[in-house]
Amino acid sequence: MPDIGKLLWPRSVAVIGASSDTKGLRGRILQIMKGHAFAGPVYPVSRSEAEVQGLPAFRSVADLPGPADLAVLIIPARFVPEELERCGRAGVPAATILSSGFAEETGGLGSSLQDEVRAIARRYDMAVSGPNGEGFANTAAALCPTFSPIMEAGAAPLAPAEGRTGGQVAVISQSGGMGFAFFDRGRPKDLSFRYVVTTGNEACLETFDFVDYMLDEGKTDVFLLLLEDVKNFATFDRVAAKALRAGRPLIVSKLGKSEAGSRAVASHTGAHAGSHDAYQAVFARYGVIESSDLDEMIDIAAGFLAFGTRLPLGKRVGICTSSGGAGAWIADACAAAGLEVPPLDAATRAHIDVHLPSYGTSQNPVDVTAQAVHKMGYAEFARLLTSSPVVDGVIVVVTAGSPRLLLGDREPLARLARESAKPIFMWSYTRPAEACVRLLSEGGYPLFTSARNCARAMRVMAEYRADRERFMCG
Amino acid sequence: MPDIGKLLWPRSVAVIGASSDTKGLRGRILQIMKGHAFAGPVYPVSRSEAEVQGLPAFRSVADLPGPADLAVLIIPARFVPEELERCGRAGVPAATILSSGFAEETGGLGSSLQDEVRAIARRYDMAVSGPNGEGFANTAAALCPTFSPIMEAGAAPLAPAEGRTGGQVAVISQSGGMGFAFFDRGRPKDLSFRYVVTTGNEACLETFDFVDYMLDEGKTDVFLLLLEDVKNFATFDRVAAKALRAGRPLIVSKLGKSEAGSRAVASHTGAHAGSHDAYQAVFARYGVIESSDLDEMIDIAAGFLAFGTRLPLGKRVGICTSSGGAGAWIADACAAAGLEVPPLDAATRAHIDVHLPSYGTSQNPVDVTAQAVHKMGYAEFARLLTSSPVVDGVIVVVTAGSPRLLLGDREPLARLARESAKPIFMWSYTRPAEACVRLLSEGGYPLFTSARNCARAMRVMAEYRADRERFMCG
Repeated sequence: MPDIGKLLWPRSVAVIGASSDTKGLRGRILQIMKGHAFAGPVYPVSRSEAEVQGLPAFRSVADLPGPADLAVLIIPARFVPEELERCGRAGVPAATILSSGFAEETGGLGSSLQDEVRAIARRYDMAVSGPNGEGFANTAAALCPTFSPIMEAGAAPLAPAEGRTGGQVAVISQSGGMGFAFFDRGRPKDLSFRYVVTTGNEACLETFDFVDYMLDEGKTDVFLLLLEDVKNFATFDRVAAKALRAGRPLIVSKLGKSEAGSRAVASHTGAHAGSHDAYQAVFARYGVIESSDLDEMIDIAAGFLAFGTRLPLGKRVGICTSSGGAGAWIADACAAAGLEVPPLDAATRAHIDVHLPSYGTSQNPVDVTAQAVHKMGYAEFARLLTSSPVVDGVIVVVTAGSPRLLLGDREPLARLARESAKPIFMWSYTRPAEACVRLLSEGGYPLFTSARNCARAMRVMAEYRADRERFMCG
Repeated sequence: MPDIGKLLWPRSVAVIGASSDTKGLRGRILQIMKGHAFAGPVYPVSRSEAEVQGLPAFRSVADLPGPADLAVLIIPARFVPEELERCGRAGVPAATILSSGFAEETGGLGSSLQDEVRAIARRYDMAVSGPNGEGFANTAAALCPTFSPIMEAGAAPLAPAEGRTGGQVAVISQSGGMGFAFFDRGRPKDLSFRYVVTTGNEACLETFDFVDYMLDEGKTDVFLLLLEDVKNFATFDRVAAKALRAGRPLIVSKLGKSEAGSRAVASHTGAHAGSHDAYQAVFARYGVIESSDLDEMIDIAAGFLAFGTRLPLGKRVGICTSSGGAGAWIADACAAAGLEVPPLDAATRAHIDVHLPSYGTSQNPVDVTAQAVHKMGYAEFARLLTSSPVVDGVIVVVTAGSPRLLLGDREPLARLARESAKPIFMWSYTRPAEACVRLLSEGGYPLFTSARNCARAMRVMAEYRADRERFMCG
């Protein structure tokens, strides 16, 4: 097995096909890489330019002044095999191929070019990702060999400050566009992404090889996977079992469920989508969590990152709200997601009732009223709910349009997140202010904006716990 | 029937219970009203203050210097009947009651107070909304008698510039919090809201009375309704039929579908949620569109606003993408939503093929590739797809993170939106820049960020067309 560590954590990188034209893909890769503070040398390799974007360029990977751990290839498909061969001879242990025109092409030479790539990688024991990928991002190394505009250096850092969130997520996707879309949509929710790896046609390394490496590395807590097919079910079985044993959930969207989707993946990466029923059966064996919605997948990941060590023991949820209508809304959403919203026990009700005005109610949903929440904040009510014996998790309805209310409740909320043995989910029916997302994230809470996703996150977390316990005992 | 026009379009307003304390609800209403440019006089009525927030206050509605068309009541429930009576005697034709403590209270006097309110309204033929509502917003009149923080005057205007969008939407909701949440979430999508009306316990006027008024007024194109119950099925039947005849879709979320939701609505507005199956049956009779997701409801409304006069004749969709993975993703989402994604006819394929590089495909989804889209833009491909005889609507996958690409395509896109006989839906898998939302909205397109909602919008638009044709012929 080639060393994926050399691919994801290279000390030095050669960009083969680098260009000064930053309007084209070949120029964009280097431009994006230079926008981040990667510590090692980056060597442009170009046949036509002596200097590329301010860096001295080299005519061949054989001419580099020092060894390159990773080659990034963005040259026409027909030249890829000979360049990869040259990399092998020069002792480059890893490559990511961003060029298109391989097995996804019908007719033509694409398939045989891809076979050549596979053979060369095998001969030199190189870790090769792609072809027809969109590169990857390693946020801790500040390394972004990709032309995805999502990874252009911007105002926001690649990851939240260290220790800010409960854990880290990795995205592995055959599709480049969709892979980086997870990052794009997850960052405003304060998710910490460790890797985004796009694998394209997976001629050599496949999704579950990367999962395997990351499990062994032990720094990735949750996986978001976008599959067009599974290349090797033996690898899948072994790695999915390892992930489940380690309690690192695999949240998967499998493309090609429909006939049209299956046509699309064939022309996209040359994948055979296969029968979705068959996929669902193997997914179920290892507690793989399936979803087909970007934001839902991110929301589920956020739930696991915050409360993965305190998964709900069952599907009974306690709801705390200061808006009666929003309470009814989320209660219906919970029922639709397969959760139970049982009436609370008398002891818990008595503890809550002493704080409520006459028009509030301690049944479930608990409508604490705006008046009581303004006086006491959310934390105390949420704490009372977590202590109920009929509840496995708690949803708190917040209005996060302004941080006014949450600011006063900051410390008690953070303490509750640390101490609670049950997961607590925050849902805002109004658009949240950035300050509220950050305040809650720092306090240890994901903030959901979709009632459906919030309820579904708790549901799949409870199921994952049960699946895992069954698997460990079986 | 009392005159709802006096309630929604008053020439002058009295705020009964107005206060200088802008931290409390009684002060917030006047503060929010003063933030907007309502043209008529606003009279604070207070027993304790001679001046409220810079306006001269009056001890009673009987002492006002001129007639008030609308009374806004925010005083303890037990004083509401006598104040409403005083309004009636003073000739005030309309009132909105924001006080709580009526039929939603179990035990106590709430129910009988609500009966009194109903009797007084009837005696004076007053248009009364509430009690236990959160007021309303009339954006064209710049009138916002509510304490909802969503309606605080901010940087954004209450509605997009005149003529910018295809039409206007009205929200009518028993829940104040959720009602204004529609506005909060719809504004960044450039929806034009004409009214947000929150009806609370609906002691007098109910949701479908407001719908009836707005249909007669003829300025509202799409309705977003949040119901806890239907108070009067005769009114519902008459008004829902009128809406369907007029082609003004009713997009409804009915709360209390679950047992817990139904407990919640009873304690929220005293409503009896009833059997959801029975509701679904009456909704189906009039093509009412049901949903239980905030963003989905807004997205469906956006679809109707843009293409309500060109609803899809069937459920066959053509997909145009420059990312293969995103094409597969939306194809699967379309199939899941009950749409068909048929292979394109040979003639359309031939027209498209001349523009595609070898690794693109003109099957459906059409993967035009990033290269072709950079050269030709989206509009020409979308136009070719709309002309296919096997397609009833088109979905275009765009990357709207930056307006670079869309800016060059602006005019052709706007022309296509004007001329196309079939609806065209834009879906962005990355988070859209504000500039892109605006550019597309000005061009006549809604921009979807959820594949599921995008597919579902086309599906319900096709069904609505079929339901309406059946109803008109039946």
